[in-house]
Amino acid sequence: MGADLQSNTYLSPGIQAMLPFLYAAWSDRHLSVPEIQSLRREAGKLPFLTEEDRQILSDWSDPVHPPSRERFQQWLTSGRRAAEDLPEDRTASLAELGIWLGLAAEDEPEAKTTFWQEQLPALHQIEAGLGGIREDTYRALFPQYDQREKLHEAIRESTVDPAELQRILEGDHAATIARVREILLRPSFERTTLRIKEDYREQVLRWCKELAREGIGALSYPREYGGQDSMADYAAAFETIAYHDLSLTIKFGVQFGLWGGAIYNLGTKRHHDAYLEATGKLELPGCFAMTETGHGSNVRGLETTAVYDHENRELIVHTPSVAAGKEYIGNAMHSRMAAVFCQLIVNGESHGVHAVVVPIRDESGHTLAGIRVEDNGYKLGLNGVDNGRLWFDQVRVPVDNLLDKYGGIDEEGRYVSPIESASRRFFTMLGTLVGGRVFVPRAGLSAAKSALAIAVRYGLRRRQFPSESMRSETIILDYPNQQRRLLPLVAKAYAVQFGLDHLLDRYVSRTEEEMREIEAMAAGMKSYATWFATAAIQECREATGGKGYLAENRFADLKADTDIFTTFEGDNTVLMQLLAKSLLTEFNKSFQEDGNIAVLKYLGRRVTTIVTEQNPYVVRQTDREHLENRSFYVSAFHFRARRLLSTLGSRLRAYIKGGMSSYQAGLLCQTHMIKAAEAYVEQLVLDESLKRVEMVREQQHLSDGLEPSDGTAATTADLLEKVITLYAAHTIEGHAAWYLESGYISGQKSKAVRKLVDILCAELRPEAGALVDGFGIPDGLLGAPIAL
Amino acid sequence: MGADLQSNTYLSPGIQAMLPFLYAAWSDRHLSVPEIQSLRREAGKLPFLTEEDRQILSDWSDPVHPPSRERFQQWLTSGRRAAEDLPEDRTASLAELGIWLGLAAEDEPEAKTTFWQEQLPALHQIEAGLGGIREDTYRALFPQYDQREKLHEAIRESTVDPAELQRILEGDHAATIARVREILLRPSFERTTLRIKEDYREQVLRWCKELAREGIGALSYPREYGGQDSMADYAAAFETIAYHDLSLTIKFGVQFGLWGGAIYNLGTKRHHDAYLEATGKLELPGCFAMTETGHGSNVRGLETTAVYDHENRELIVHTPSVAAGKEYIGNAMHSRMAAVFCQLIVNGESHGVHAVVVPIRDESGHTLAGIRVEDNGYKLGLNGVDNGRLWFDQVRVPVDNLLDKYGGIDEEGRYVSPIESASRRFFTMLGTLVGGRVFVPRAGLSAAKSALAIAVRYGLRRRQFPSESMRSETIILDYPNQQRRLLPLVAKAYAVQFGLDHLLDRYVSRTEEEMREIEAMAAGMKSYATWFATAAIQECREATGGKGYLAENRFADLKADTDIFTTFEGDNTVLMQLLAKSLLTEFNKSFQEDGNIAVLKYLGRRVTTIVTEQNPYVVRQTDREHLENRSFYVSAFHFRARRLLSTLGSRLRAYIKGGMSSYQAGLLCQTHMIKAAEAYVEQLVLDESLKRVEMVREQQHLSDGLEPSDGTAATTADLLEKVITLYAAHTIEGHAAWYLESGYISGQKSKAVRKLVDILCAELRPEAGALVDGFGIPDGLLGAPIAL
Repeated sequence: MGADLQSNTYLSPGIQAMLPFLYAAWSDRHLSVPEIQSLRREAGKLPFLTEEDRQILSDWSDPVHPPSRERFQQWLTSGRRAAEDLPEDRTASLAELGIWLGLAAEDEPEAKTTFWQEQLPALHQIEAGLGGIREDTYRALFPQYDQREKLHEAIRESTVDPAELQRILEGDHAATIARVREILLRPSFERTTLRIKEDYREQVLRWCKELAREGIGALSYPREYGGQDSMADYAAAFETIAYHDLSLTIKFGVQFGLWGGAIYNLGTKRHHDAYLEATGKLELPGCFAMTETGHGSNVRGLETTAVYDHENRELIVHTPSVAAGKEYIGNAMHSRMAAVFCQLIVNGESHGVHAVVVPIRDESGHTLAGIRVEDNGYKLGLNGVDNGRLWFDQVRVPVDNLLDKYGGIDEEGRYVSPIESASRRFFTMLGTLVGGRVFVPRAGLSAAKSALAIAVRYGLRRRQFPSESMRSETIILDYPNQQRRLLPLVAKAYAVQFGLDHLLDRYVSRTEEEMREIEAMAAGMKSYATWFATAAIQECREATGGKGYLAENRFADLKADTDIFTTFEGDNTVLMQLLAKSLLTEFNKSFQEDGNIAVLKYLGRRVTTIVTEQNPYVVRQTDREHLENRSFYVSAFHFRARRLLSTLGSRLRAYIKGGMSSYQAGLLCQTHMIKAAEAYVEQLVLDESLKRVEMVREQQHLSDGLEPSDGTAATTADLLEKVITLYAAHTIEGHAAWYLESGYISGQKSKAVRKLVDILCAELRPEAGALVDGFGIPDGLLGAPIAL
Repeated sequence: MGADLQSNTYLSPGIQAMLPFLYAAWSDRHLSVPEIQSLRREAGKLPFLTEEDRQILSDWSDPVHPPSRERFQQWLTSGRRAAEDLPEDRTASLAELGIWLGLAAEDEPEAKTTFWQEQLPALHQIEAGLGGIREDTYRALFPQYDQREKLHEAIRESTVDPAELQRILEGDHAATIARVREILLRPSFERTTLRIKEDYREQVLRWCKELAREGIGALSYPREYGGQDSMADYAAAFETIAYHDLSLTIKFGVQFGLWGGAIYNLGTKRHHDAYLEATGKLELPGCFAMTETGHGSNVRGLETTAVYDHENRELIVHTPSVAAGKEYIGNAMHSRMAAVFCQLIVNGESHGVHAVVVPIRDESGHTLAGIRVEDNGYKLGLNGVDNGRLWFDQVRVPVDNLLDKYGGIDEEGRYVSPIESASRRFFTMLGTLVGGRVFVPRAGLSAAKSALAIAVRYGLRRRQFPSESMRSETIILDYPNQQRRLLPLVAKAYAVQFGLDHLLDRYVSRTEEEMREIEAMAAGMKSYATWFATAAIQECREATGGKGYLAENRFADLKADTDIFTTFEGDNTVLMQLLAKSLLTEFNKSFQEDGNIAVLKYLGRRVTTIVTEQNPYVVRQTDREHLENRSFYVSAFHFRARRLLSTLGSRLRAYIKGGMSSYQAGLLCQTHMIKAAEAYVEQLVLDESLKRVEMVREQQHLSDGLEPSDGTAATTADLLEKVITLYAAHTIEGHAAWYLESGYISGQKSKAVRKLVDILCAELRPEAGALVDGFGIPDGLLGAPIAL
């Protein structure tokens, strides 16, 4: 080959530049007259061809004298070698090859770079003029051509059907989701840019009313009040609305979930009869007035009071100080009523927090006497939600307005409650709040899915050099760095959904005994999912560059609207500490209950771990089979969760034994607590994801028994397993320092995990389009021009 | 002590609750009559006191019979023990202690929690009624009381004077910064909420004009055109404006830096005379029309053409296709002229990219013939900047409009250039763009500083339980988790500034030979600083919870406006790869030039590293002295930078040797390249930061020789050294997995580094207020109500 190339060296730069064209022209061993004419005519205009060059070109394009086999092979070899050297961003074009060959043949290539660069348009013209160059020609010249073509095909046809993925994600609620989607795609829901909050809020109110008219708001209410009695369908509707507009989602949640939920869960039949149907239809807009400025997360310490006046059978609702005002209340500017949480005082005795329905506006929207409302003003996002502050000045309402399911006032003016323990009563009432922690992360996940769908589609379609004369184009997602940015997030979106689905199932079918556990789980999943949403949307914005910064491409709103999700319904760092404390209580309880047996069991498990997972061989094992095996990564997740919790317990005990107060000890372990809680959530997410993969696999086996298999479902299960493996490997990679410190993996194994993430990203790259289409977000809701 | 407590156990819950009050009442061994009356009267109303309890209370508050020393001690012991058990968020109050004691004495505490909780207001009233309880009493009861008081003091008086820090940060440009600050604090610069982009843009234009009238825009121009000839002062002004409004900052940069910079740097005297003074005064608004839709980062491939017509001595500027339109051009809607970058074609020959001044609007603002302008619409942020798209349809301008410093057309119509090499000419012209990469990260850093100042001040001042009856309050920044969130970012802000200052110095005093190196450094620092800004502002928003979500507290704009900084002036991931390639070239060059000596040197350094840094003792060394020693962390930074670069080189060589094209090999190493570039930047930032610390220390020594030292400057240098140590330790912690994988540190050492970060955060907590005040942002510019 060296000799072949050598024999080309006498050729001038100009002729070198023409070789790819000569090769292409002769590659089917036949040159048409128009082709010859085009080639010679265009070549005549080229400034870099000398008279001598033109003569050679004319000889070599003489149809009567085809080139010798050797010469033809030389042209191919030169071209192919140049193709290998083509710098980044260059694509399969003869023009590019010609430039490269010409430049390389110059005596001082640096000085001639611009000159040759500027010849590109003319050479493109010649390439176009040759017409009908066969794919084979490109394939022969460009070593990566085949692979690229495969990638193009992969976009068009990945190995799975997105509809199949969508079926799995939507589960039993496909019908509800489809119905809500249909409504959101109506012309009346068309998005417009409304920068002034009052305009935007009016639009969101109109949208919310339309959803209410269609019965979507009442889905979780009993049938006799216009509902479907299905909390799960309500959740499905809620997360689907989040594909459209997050202000609408939150307002919808406040009206039907919080206000309606308070009436339904804390009220009795007379309240249901009076308010529920009108609430579901949004004929009665209401708000949930719990939080106070001075008591962000301390519900028990609320200062608003409701004093019972037996003579008039009335409650006097009052805000004792400015700081006791109700803060950040959604729907505050549109509501006619409020469920006000306050200390109930009967006969001078306080019975703790109860909710009272207080009318705040008349039918024409005027604020009633004794009510003060203040707009919260512009926020970072969610400006379509009318948040406000509320104060009550000795406002009198009939005692019937007390939502008295768990505590009321009888005819004689005595406080009565079916729950004796004030503490249990309080926590039972507070159970209505947990719903928010189950639903909000689903809306956050929807936003992340929208962002990922937009960024991945943009990554699959964008051409960096879109000039028409080029045949092939660079797909952004072919860059490993872009794969690294987006694919682990796509995988995590699937895993998080499986975790949230489990939480929802548990929540919907909960018993009272399970509530504490479910509350802790909800606290953890809410934090994990909303942190994920914030990070994923940010990464997508950056991955789409300047295009992603234009409001029309939706990252502006997705980012801004979801940013508060990590704070509301409980600040994530606080929630994670709550979860950790709950886990610790369980952990300690099991020790206390089982006594020495528990200790032996625990030690036994540690010994087993050391033998099976932490032996020197496994710690260093780096083969792909091992790393992709569930036994490795599931064990790693469980090990981390277990170890972080037990070391947390030990640390706390040691501090307290050393004379520290439990408060101080807790402070010192804050970061540790958050990590332990995160590890628990990750273990849950992984376990539940793998269960879902198995369900998909089993369904396939079942249908295999009934009818001839087309192999679809098996492939889907395999793909999902790979997705979850990526989630697992990427998560372990993120905690690599901890695993290394713990001696659970060696440095080599840590590198191998990183490499596995690279490989899985590359392997999932052709499936990326199907994976985001599987989210089932219609183009009309996705909206972003760069994704369409 | 057990016995003492035992002897209390016969007391009823009610009396237990009163013990702290009894202790306080008797703590000065003297009970006034009003105190006795208040205590007895209020106690009479308490529902939890039995008749018997009241009798005991009456006995124990009999002024004639003070308690025995033993009994008094018992009260203290009980109270103190309860104080230690107080849960989170409770503060030093007798009322809280009473509740806790009463509850603890109940048979079934769980059932009574709410009941006791509800006694809090009444007990607070008693506490207030006792009047003038001495600090000593609180100090005796609450073990942490002293420490808390110390922290309070620390906020008021940290060990350094913020003005001293400010002096260091502002350096030689204090006067310019002060002057710009004074202008920005004028009533005319008051911020208002302008949601509609047209309104906002008009306001920004007005502000920009006022700055121009004050000569701020022209700072970098020669004196004869109204300037000060100081690029560094221009930079100082630019970063100060970023404390006010980032749309203004960017528009200011476009008008004076990009448009004015093009005139000044690419034009000749006739252009300077014609445009520069009017540009500096903003009487002539202009824009910098380089980027095209189809060629985001490929300036050489721009498609807009300027064809020379010798007959009329005119240039015909033309956009050949829609995709060749100029994209995202700042100032596009307000400009009267544009510096249009296009391929210059003379006599049918292209001479590469040149800039031509093209009038686009007449004096009354109407678009001229042949010009099409389109608004880019709403963006995620920076909506006060009028970005637009531009197309030219055969627009004729006199040949004099060609900015011809590096290439022009002579009287005979021939292309002439002082730089023969087209390539060198191109890169010289492009040098004007690098300024943006030097200035933009400074604006990003200003935004991060604003966010940090707001979040830290909020963390220092917020009281979680602000009810008036409580004497002490919880400071959010006392939570270790909050310290962890904010203090490493404050430290990094200092380090990044020192790095950026170095870059600016190099840029301002650059020679042509240094340009390549400075360009690479600017690419890296721009990426590092803007990524930092995005992350820091996000963390600050989350750390301030719901308050941080209100637009008035400024995170909304800080986040949205800076989000594009990671993309514009070059996408960060692309820039980092550029830097890596440049580093690799240098690395390879030094090998080639020095030949075997270089190899030996390199191997020698590796051997030295292995002996001095990677020996088993050092790898496991965990004492604080070692970890805080520069020799540890500087070596660690250098090791990482060196190792990542040399392994990058090896990997690339191996791939290429194995038959891969350099394009493919580069793709596979993308992530590695970015990491290598990051390590280089971090090493630079650390080295330059330590140099600055030394400068501060030396100045102190100098002034020591002249006058008696008050110890201030020495403390400042020590504080700065601690700040940089935190930056170093936190950075190493972030790369812990890599250091562990490389065997550079052991698992124990990795844990010790994490612990060191905790300790440094706690130690810097009392300095946090001074550190952010040192940024020198006046309250009037900080603006956020939560920070004031």
